[in-house]
Amino acid sequence: MSKPQPIDEAQASPEVRAVFDDIKALRHVEDVNNFWKYLARDPVGLKRTWESVKEVMAPGALSPLVKEMIYVAVSVTNNCDYCIASHTASARKAGMTEAMFAELMAVVGMANETNRLANGYRVPIDAAFD
Amino acid sequence: MSKPQPIDEAQASPEVRAVFDDIKALRHVEDVNNFWKYLARDPVGLKRTWESVKEVMAPGALSPLVKEMIYVAVSVTNNCDYCIASHTASARKAGMTEAMFAELMAVVGMANETNRLANGYRVPIDAAFD
Amino acid sequence: MSKPQPIDEAQASPEVRAVFDDIKALRHVEDVNNFWKYLARDPVGLKRTWESVKEVMAPGALSPLVKEMIYVAVSVTNNCDYCIASHTASARKAGMTEAMFAELMAVVGMANETNRLANGYRVPIDAAFD
Amino acid sequence: MSKPQPIDEAQASPEVRAVFDDIKALRHVEDVNNFWKYLARDPVGLKRTWESVKEVMAPGALSPLVKEMIYVAVSVTNNCDYCIASHTASARKAGMTEAMFAELMAVVGMANETNRLANGYRVPIDAAFD
Amino acid sequence: MSKPQPIDEAQASPEVRAVFDDIKALRHVEDVNNFWKYLARDPVGLKRTWESVKEVMAPGALSPLVKEMIYVAVSVTNNCDYCIASHTASARKAGMTEAMFAELMAVVGMANETNRLANGYRVPIDAAFD
Amino acid sequence: MSKPQPIDEAQASPEVRAVFDDIKALRHVEDVNNFWKYLARDPVGLKRTWESVKEVMAPGALSPLVKEMIYVAVSVTNNCDYCIASHTASARKAGMTEAMFAELMAVVGMANETNRLANGYRVPIDAAFD
Repeated sequence: MSKPQPIDEAQASPEVRAVFDDIKALRHVEDVNNFWKYLARDPVGLKRTWESVKEVMAPGALSPLVKEMIYVAVSVTNNCDYCIASHTASARKAGMTEAMFAELMAVVGMANETNRLANGYRVPIDAAFD
Repeated sequence: MSKPQPIDEAQASPEVRAVFDDIKALRHVEDVNNFWKYLARDPVGLKRTWESVKEVMAPGALSPLVKEMIYVAVSVTNNCDYCIASHTASARKAGMTEAMFAELMAVVGMANETNRLANGYRVPIDAAFD
Repeated sequence: MSKPQPIDEAQASPEVRAVFDDIKALRHVEDVNNFWKYLARDPVGLKRTWESVKEVMAPGALSPLVKEMIYVAVSVTNNCDYCIASHTASARKAGMTEAMFAELMAVVGMANETNRLANGYRVPIDAAFD
Repeated sequence: MSKPQPIDEAQASPEVRAVFDDIKALRHVEDVNNFWKYLARDPVGLKRTWESVKEVMAPGALSPLVKEMIYVAVSVTNNCDYCIASHTASARKAGMTEAMFAELMAVVGMANETNRLANGYRVPIDAAFD
Repeated sequence: MSKPQPIDEAQASPEVRAVFDDIKALRHVEDVNNFWKYLARDPVGLKRTWESVKEVMAPGALSPLVKEMIYVAVSVTNNCDYCIASHTASARKAGMTEAMFAELMAVVGMANETNRLANGYRVPIDAAFD
Repeated sequence: MSKPQPIDEAQASPEVRAVFDDIKALRHVEDVNNFWKYLARDPVGLKRTWESVKEVMAPGALSPLVKEMIYVAVSVTNNCDYCIASHTASARKAGMTEAMFAELMAVVGMANETNRLANGYRVPIDAAFD
C-alpha cells in the first residue's frame, strides 16, 4: 500500500495532537481538515507548516479575506484541486461574495493569458519598472 | 530575424493607435508599456486583450489594488518576469505598501508550498468543501 | 468516444507485445502498468519512451532510489496524479522509507516556496553561481 | 565554477561529433545550436535526446510546421526563454507567417486563461467527453 | 456549500441565455458544455470569454483543427483535466485522427522534456534567434 | 522605483543581522547570497524562511546531496533561474559530480515528458497504487 494514510485524532501522538488542538482553537472548528491529517505522517513538518501558515495568514497589512483570495489565485494557477476547494471555502468564510469570486476568477484567467502573451512575444521589461 | 519587434506609436495603424490612445487616456500616461507595443503586431488581438483587461481590471467587487496583487500572485507563480515587473509597479501605484508586498510574497510562497504538500500526500477533498 | 482507450496484452500487436514483455522481464512483474497500456495506442512512441525510460532510470551515478525520488519531486511539482501515485510506489519498492518520503515532500514544498520568493523579489544571480 | 559549459565541435569526442554531424546534415546547417552544445556534457543523453527529437519531429500525420507551432505553444506555456526563441525560429523556417504566429499566440493565451477558469469553477467533465 | 454550481438553461437570465443560444447555433449542438454552465455564474465573464473564444478559434491563418490541437497541447502541459477532455473531443470533431493525436502527444511530451533540459543546462539563446 | 532592493549587512537591523550571522556560521561562508539580502526586506519572513530551510535541508533520512538535487529538480521544472543557479552550486558543493548532474537532468527531463503523456492519454491510476 503506497498511498499515504491520514492520522486521525484518536491515533495522534501528543505532538500531533497539540498542533491539531491549536488549529481547532484558532479556527473555532471541531475537527481539522484532511490536509493536516495527512501531513501528520510527518509531525515535524506538520508543526513547521502550521506555524508558518498561522504566521503568514494572520491579519496584517492585508486582510484575511485578501490573503485567502491570493491563496485561491495561486491554487487555481497550479491546478491543485484540494487547495482550490479548501481555500475557496476559507475565502467564503472570510467574506468573499459570489461577485468577488467571479472577479477573482476573471483576474486569474486574464493574468494567466497575458503572462503567456508576454512570454511568447518576448517583451523586454520597460525601464520604468526597474 | 525571428524575434518579434514592437510597434511604436509613429508606425501604428489607425486601429492600433486608437487602442494606444485609449490606454493612455484611461491610465493617464504618456506612453504605453512595451507589452502593448509588442502585442500590436496583432491589431485584432491587441484590441481584444485591451478590452478584456479594461473590463476585468475595472473597480468592482474587488478594488484595483486587490486585483493588481492577484495579478502579481499569478505572475510570480508562473515566473513571468515581464508581468512580475509591470504588475508590481501597477500594484504600488494602486497603493501597495512595502508591508503589503511582503505579505503578498509570503502568501504566494506558502500557497505554492502547501499546493505541493496536498499533491504529494494525495489528500482527498473534505466533504465539507463540496 | 473521444477518451483514449488502453491496449491490453491480448489485443497487442507483436511490436507492442515485445515492449510489454521487456518491461515485465526487467521489472519482474506480471503485468504492465496502465501508463504503458495507454501509450500503446502509439507503438512507435511506446517503444521510444520505454527505451528512454529504461536508459534514464538504470542505476548509474545515481541510485534507482534517488532517481525515483527525483521523479516524484517533478511529478508533485507538476501535479500529475498518475505519476505521483506510480512513482511513489516505485520509490517505496526501491527502498524509500516513510521518513524519506516525509523529507522528500518537505524539500519539494520548500523549493516550490522559495522558487516563488526568488521570482517575486526579482533576485539577481550571484556572481559566484556563474 | 558551477555553470554548465558548452562543448564546441573542436573539443567534441567522436560520439558527440557524430551527433553534431547528423544534426547538421539533417538540418542543412553549418553549426549546431547552443542547446546541443550544452547537452553534449552528457554524450549518452545527447544521443538519446537527438534520436528522440528526430523521430518525433519528422513529418508524419502532422506537418513539421504544425509540430513546431505545438512546440512553441508548450514552450510559451512553460516560459522557457531558450525554447521560445529557438522553436519560434524553427517554426518561421518551416513556413509560419506573422499571421500564423499571431493566431498561435492568441490560442495559447486563451487556452491558458480557460484552463484556469475550468480549474477555479471546478467544472466536472461532461459525460460526452468520456 | 462552497462548490460553484452550474446554471442550466431553464434558470438562465436573458443575457446568459443569449450566450448559450449563440454557442449552440455556432457549434450546431443542442446543449452547451459544462464549462459554459459554470461560467454563467458570472454573466459578464461568460459573454467576454465566449466572444474571445469565438474570435480566437475562428478559422484564419490557422485551421480549426490546428487551433484545437494547440489548445490540447497547452491543456496537457497545464494538466487541466476538463480542458484535455473537452478540447481532445473538439479536435477529433475537427478531424484529428488517432495518428495525429499520437504525434501531438509525442511533440508535447518532447517539448516538456527539452524545455527542462534547456533550463537546467542554463543554455544561452543563440545570436541567430534574436 | 518599483524593483525590490537588497539589504546589505551594513544596513541590516539587529534581527536581520542575526539571521545573516546564523546563515554564515552554519554554511561557513563570509557573506550571504542575494536571496537572503532581498528577502531581508521582510525581516519576519526572512527569519521564518531561514528557520524552515535550515530544518528541511538538515541531514536526516536523506543526505544533503540528495536534498539539493531534489531542490534542483523542482527549480528546473519551475524554471526559476536564480534557484537553478544557486542550488546547482549547492549540490556541487555537497558532492554532486558531473555524471550525477547529467543523470539528474535526464530524470527531470524524462519525468516532465511522461507527466504530460499520462495527462494527455488520461491514464487512470492502477489499483495497485492505492
